[in-house]
Amino acid sequence: MDVTLRELVGVIGGELSGDGSVVIKAVAGIREAGPGTVTFLANPRYEAFLKTTRASAIIVPRGTSHPTKPLVFADNPYLTFIKAVEFFVPNRNVQVPGIHPTAIIARTARIGSGVHIGPNVVIEDQTTICDGTSVLAGTYIGRGTEIGTGCLIYPNVTIREQITIGSRVIIHSGAVIGSDGFGFVRDGDVYRKVPQIGNVVIQDDVEVGANVTIDRATTGTTLIGKGTKIDNLVQIGHNVVVGDNCILVAQVGIGGSAQLGTGVTMAGQAGAAGHITIGDGATVGAQGGATKSIQAGMTVSGYPAREHTQANKIYASLLKLPDLLKKVAELGERLSKVEERTKD
Amino acid sequence: MDVTLRELVGVIGGELSGDGSVVIKAVAGIREAGPGTVTFLANPRYEAFLKTTRASAIIVPRGTSHPTKPLVFADNPYLTFIKAVEFFVPNRNVQVPGIHPTAIIARTARIGSGVHIGPNVVIEDQTTICDGTSVLAGTYIGRGTEIGTGCLIYPNVTIREQITIGSRVIIHSGAVIGSDGFGFVRDGDVYRKVPQIGNVVIQDDVEVGANVTIDRATTGTTLIGKGTKIDNLVQIGHNVVVGDNCILVAQVGIGGSAQLGTGVTMAGQAGAAGHITIGDGATVGAQGGATKSIQAGMTVSGYPAREHTQANKIYASLLKLPDLLKKVAELGERLSKVEERTKD
Amino acid sequence: MDVTLRELVGVIGGELSGDGSVVIKAVAGIREAGPGTVTFLANPRYEAFLKTTRASAIIVPRGTSHPTKPLVFADNPYLTFIKAVEFFVPNRNVQVPGIHPTAIIARTARIGSGVHIGPNVVIEDQTTICDGTSVLAGTYIGRGTEIGTGCLIYPNVTIREQITIGSRVIIHSGAVIGSDGFGFVRDGDVYRKVPQIGNVVIQDDVEVGANVTIDRATTGTTLIGKGTKIDNLVQIGHNVVVGDNCILVAQVGIGGSAQLGTGVTMAGQAGAAGHITIGDGATVGAQGGATKSIQAGMTVSGYPAREHTQANKIYASLLKLPDLLKKVAELGERLSKVEERTKD
Repeated sequence: MDVTLRELVGVIGGELSGDGSVVIKAVAGIREAGPGTVTFLANPRYEAFLKTTRASAIIVPRGTSHPTKPLVFADNPYLTFIKAVEFFVPNRNVQVPGIHPTAIIARTARIGSGVHIGPNVVIEDQTTICDGTSVLAGTYIGRGTEIGTGCLIYPNVTIREQITIGSRVIIHSGAVIGSDGFGFVRDGDVYRKVPQIGNVVIQDDVEVGANVTIDRATTGTTLIGKGTKIDNLVQIGHNVVVGDNCILVAQVGIGGSAQLGTGVTMAGQAGAAGHITIGDGATVGAQGGATKSIQAGMTVSGYPAREHTQANKIYASLLKLPDLLKKVAELGERLSKVEERTKD
Repeated sequence: MDVTLRELVGVIGGELSGDGSVVIKAVAGIREAGPGTVTFLANPRYEAFLKTTRASAIIVPRGTSHPTKPLVFADNPYLTFIKAVEFFVPNRNVQVPGIHPTAIIARTARIGSGVHIGPNVVIEDQTTICDGTSVLAGTYIGRGTEIGTGCLIYPNVTIREQITIGSRVIIHSGAVIGSDGFGFVRDGDVYRKVPQIGNVVIQDDVEVGANVTIDRATTGTTLIGKGTKIDNLVQIGHNVVVGDNCILVAQVGIGGSAQLGTGVTMAGQAGAAGHITIGDGATVGAQGGATKSIQAGMTVSGYPAREHTQANKIYASLLKLPDLLKKVAELGERLSKVEERTKD
Repeated sequence: MDVTLRELVGVIGGELSGDGSVVIKAVAGIREAGPGTVTFLANPRYEAFLKTTRASAIIVPRGTSHPTKPLVFADNPYLTFIKAVEFFVPNRNVQVPGIHPTAIIARTARIGSGVHIGPNVVIEDQTTICDGTSVLAGTYIGRGTEIGTGCLIYPNVTIREQITIGSRVIIHSGAVIGSDGFGFVRDGDVYRKVPQIGNVVIQDDVEVGANVTIDRATTGTTLIGKGTKIDNLVQIGHNVVVGDNCILVAQVGIGGSAQLGTGVTMAGQAGAAGHITIGDGATVGAQGGATKSIQAGMTVSGYPAREHTQANKIYASLLKLPDLLKKVAELGERLSKVEERTKD
């Protein structure tokens, strides 16, 4: 669809600066953009590409200037760019309602209207799939599980029995929701399995990445709060409570019964020990290991995780440690000489 | 099922203290327990909840007291609680024997009695599935693989060819058993694949978590010893030998040809380098990186992994390192002054 | 198939030293080898097994000697051994061409000759599967995806829409290719999803391990260069560029928009931050965390990742840190005494 930049700004918002008559046909990232595209600048890292981009127009923060190209000023250029993406690129993952003839759906399952169920999907007894939800090929949904409206469950997902999933939840391929918690009691030399009879509740607007694992609770509930986004290969142990609007980056692991507040961020490969609490708005840096509870608003990093500026100081000091050892040995020798010659 | 506490103790064991006539209808964790439930106290972390729990009875270690509630004394309260769980909660994962019409089973496969095979399961030639085993929806079992009695293989598992699995093994969804080991030889600038012609042997009573990967051996066997429990997203490289009754917590990675003794514990996100040995009863702390062999009985932590109390001392010392740098600089200046004024 | 060692050397190359008439029936690793097998020695770690191996012949580096057994000298013993493996062990994963009747293949899909498509495979519209490729049971291939010649896609893989895969690519079970990149923009208290409209390109001769996740680009392409080998449970973020002939060991994580050069090695559980560059031939040690760009040819380790010999010095120095603290305190006291008694 071809539009003028002026027409596009009418749809996506922002303030036009420069020639509104250029024709825009597509969106693109700032590095790969060509003529006829609109791009954006949000990350200062990419500022150098302002000069070299071949885009026909750029969505930018207010105050940005460009010698030749028309700009669109926006409070949040990335958000405005998303609107352009949504204008130009149809959502490829909107599914046509209907049930594939190879899907195996229990007679007691309740399927809403506008639902899409793909080939080889298995839906067990007493499940509920609400209006407008899509369940793609090869996905398994266990007995008694409920899925809200407008969800998108990608191919080859496994959702075990008695799970509750809210509305507009996205679950990527290979994710496993409701596997048994890792609970064993030592009985002499062997471990005896603790039955895992709890469930998992995933609230509205959560996104769960590919090959994520979320264990069911031993008793009670493993809870993922609304709006939380979980990246690929994340592990969430039994009875964990993750608050609303958290960000869990790829390969994060959260030990059993840990509790995360609202707006917590855990960067890639970070871990949280079982039973600890991470307060609202706290951040754990990449590969950080939170071994104890973290106060609200704090940023921690390293192993064991410590307040970030302190951790940084320590890591910088470490570079001087090998020299420090030599220096202290020299001081000792010099001091011995002084002691020797000042003896009474 | 409603029973009196006295009747329940008759079934699960332990010693009743207090009113045995209270009616128990269910089990629950100490925090979420309500009236009519029995709960337990095993982890000292939860002692504070003794006072606030709404449970009608509590299974506790001997010597515990409570002002109002009936108690059940037990040597191992968690084990006794498990018996209560098994009394009240039917095992939801016991499957009705039978083969789903959509399962695709090779004519040469040997299927025992009392076996459950779910929808869309694929079972290749020359496989054996022994009595009482359940293989759930969408799982793939490769040519020549043998699975013992009473196993539970959850949906969407992949078990490749020529694998041997013992009895009472549980394998969670998304696990991949017998993928090729990561073996390549450098040939000039490129890598040439080493055929992976070995197998995997999983002994009795092992549990394998969701999305775990266990690679087949290059030649010979990748072995998981009996009673070992493997949490989600663990990686086990080719030719690894894991002893009996080990505990491998989520996201652990074990490099090729490493050998773990009996009763080894590796906490979450820990790693073991290839070719090393970890002795019987040793423990690697969370996120620890075992770069060299670990003696039997030792507990190590950190990267590179060191004896745990030593590692703890080092991590505590680190907090003082930035100050130490300043202090040593000051000592140097003070010493220079003394040297100056004590020169002959 | 039984052959004399002399005949085998005629096939696999190398220089025979000793009795060429011994009969060889199979290949085996040096530890588990029995009579009638040929084994090899490549890793100096295993030199001790030269004396104890029960193999009938050993492929060794030139200059090796053995009191009794015939040897085969080779420039690269492992490569020569691979040829022996290929001679004795038929590739079990060569599939018979044909399409299983339960496969669900869109009418607009283009399927080449000699293609094997297993049970319950789902192939969507406008896909291309080129000659000689095998797609095994339960795998899903999304709309518009193209797969080259001679590929082997194991069971239960998910390849999303609009992905391009080269020739001779191997993808292991549970891998997910083309899941959405982890892109969200903060909009007040909540996160808004950034549509992920880019793709993934996997070039020739790549191997992708079990349960690996490779995210599609936000816009543009996530690229895996030719000959790169990816171990199990690796995460590759959106817009990452991995060069040719890289080695990514199990559980590695690469943040969005990071760029790896040619011949980069990342050892197990290592991580690379988003947006950084890792130069040609660089190596990141196991569990290392590359927080900043790494120059070509450099080896780094630890967190934050530093040049490897420097990191090793620091880790060795750390052992002396607790003592150093005491020593500096003592020096301070001794210095105070000297200062006291040398006061004017």
